[in-house]
Amino acid sequence: MPDHAGGPRPSEDEVIARLLAPLATHPGADGLRDDAALLSPAPGTSLVVTTDALVQGVHFLDDPPATIARKALRVNLSDLAAKGAEPHAFLLALALPEGWTAAWLEEFVAGLAADAAAYRFPLLGGDTVRTPGPLTLAVTAFGLVPGSAIPRRSGARPGDRLYVSGTIGDGALGLLARREDPRLRVDAEERRALVARYQVPEPRVALAPAVRAHASAAMDVSDGLAGDAAKLLRASGTTATLSLDAVPLSGAVRSAVAADPALRDLALTGGDDYEILCAVPFARAAAFEADAARAGVPVTAIGTVEAGQGPPAWIDSAGRPHAFPAAGFSHF
Amino acid sequence: MPDHAGGPRPSEDEVIARLLAPLATHPGADGLRDDAALLSPAPGTSLVVTTDALVQGVHFLDDPPATIARKALRVNLSDLAAKGAEPHAFLLALALPEGWTAAWLEEFVAGLAADAAAYRFPLLGGDTVRTPGPLTLAVTAFGLVPGSAIPRRSGARPGDRLYVSGTIGDGALGLLARREDPRLRVDAEERRALVARYQVPEPRVALAPAVRAHASAAMDVSDGLAGDAAKLLRASGTTATLSLDAVPLSGAVRSAVAADPALRDLALTGGDDYEILCAVPFARAAAFEADAARAGVPVTAIGTVEAGQGPPAWIDSAGRPHAFPAAGFSHF
Repeated sequence: MPDHAGGPRPSEDEVIARLLAPLATHPGADGLRDDAALLSPAPGTSLVVTTDALVQGVHFLDDPPATIARKALRVNLSDLAAKGAEPHAFLLALALPEGWTAAWLEEFVAGLAADAAAYRFPLLGGDTVRTPGPLTLAVTAFGLVPGSAIPRRSGARPGDRLYVSGTIGDGALGLLARREDPRLRVDAEERRALVARYQVPEPRVALAPAVRAHASAAMDVSDGLAGDAAKLLRASGTTATLSLDAVPLSGAVRSAVAADPALRDLALTGGDDYEILCAVPFARAAAFEADAARAGVPVTAIGTVEAGQGPPAWIDSAGRPHAFPAAGFSHF
Repeated sequence: MPDHAGGPRPSEDEVIARLLAPLATHPGADGLRDDAALLSPAPGTSLVVTTDALVQGVHFLDDPPATIARKALRVNLSDLAAKGAEPHAFLLALALPEGWTAAWLEEFVAGLAADAAAYRFPLLGGDTVRTPGPLTLAVTAFGLVPGSAIPRRSGARPGDRLYVSGTIGDGALGLLARREDPRLRVDAEERRALVARYQVPEPRVALAPAVRAHASAAMDVSDGLAGDAAKLLRASGTTATLSLDAVPLSGAVRSAVAADPALRDLALTGGDDYEILCAVPFARAAAFEADAARAGVPVTAIGTVEAGQGPPAWIDSAGRPHAFPAAGFSHF
């Protein structure tokens, strides 16, 4: 957190009343005048709940405060989308380090406000404390689904197609760009695109209805496609054959891999994608693809679920097996 | 966190599957095999949601891991009780510092498990990350209430009686005891009682039905009775006359105040009480007292809500006004 100038630091009451209360448009938030909020989902609907903690130096770097706020919301929106849920509201627990400034906090809240508005995702409540350590955030996100079932990780069945949304590896190579790693050789525009994707991911909120309608299993890709695919298949008691060359890559990632082929492994294991990985029964694949196209979200089939145990087999277009060097990034 | 010996550190997957999954008995938790949980409150009920962040060195000291876990749950259970809600489930975001050990984490989870069982308060989900800073926890607690209304801070009306549960000041003087502050002159047994109350507060879960049935406004006392009473009255657009000598004190706090009268101010402003402060319409006061007695929770009337603005007037039994030196403890 930069120790730049700003006005005098507001008190906790001022932070809540002046900065955060305008975001708390959910009726159950009572304008943040209380320690607790009220959620009364409509009959026949359920709440999907997910929580993610982010620590400066682990999950983000010394990034602009608005992008830190937006990433904290978006990684949670990504989890909701992977369960087919519509954004409903969020809680924010914010631990501010010793050197925080009024200007920093105002920029942070401006980022939060922008995405709360863009995703119709009001603040429901939270807690603000100080810490002798780094800036730490925990966002708890609430989504709504009709009925009382969601696509779990464990529902994939042999014969299902495995799909991934968008493109893979931009976040991982964006972190390389952010760190000015010499292995990354791309042009300035590609570099900007990768950094932007690392700092402010694009949660696939628009894909939620298609996932809910058609997926037998789903999760968001946050710890690397290779590792996350293995997790989903293991949770489902299945395995798969996956096509390395089918994995969708952006132009910037393709440029980087052309300059250094070893970066393809990093793209598929590095994490921070926030795309959706889902299994879709074969009979529903066409309907899923059509609904995804109507939602404006590209989806790509990368393989087929198979009976059996063990990690998936990755093969290239010549049928040669491929082994990844690392098991996937862990924030733990 | 002590850097004592322990077995090899488990992976995040092992922590979740072996240590945390046994606490995740809520059906919506899906055994923690997913990133998201499902809540489907019964028709005609609402969820009360509250979140509290706790940072080592700010909210707790280098305490036994089991008591840190129990305090994190109990401060949230206290918030739920103050809104008249029954415990339902919780989420835990846990940021572990560099030096964590398997033994530390096992003791922490044992404390969590003990209170999850005692309060029928299953784990619903969470996130586990590492931090270069101090141990940091964020607990999000869910409670259930019938209908779709809860006693807010803002509902107190002139003529209501203000009640406080239990005794006030034990947590604040427990922190003095924990820090071996020479101002605290009590015997060994009183000292143990105060430290225990600071480390493991007693949330007034049993009082929730009486609060729900009778209170016009309620909050839990976590930042000092004097400051929290002022907050409730301000949120309600009212003021009050409050009796200093009516504030219920435990034997240990009375001993400490007898030895050093200045400690009474600290007892009423120091925080960490986790008692319930509530306003009850005069016509319901007898029923509230009867329900509280049936629940086994002592409640004491400390004054009457009055029309008007401004902080409450505190008077002693001789009618002399009393001003507190500090505005209440802030974790911010």
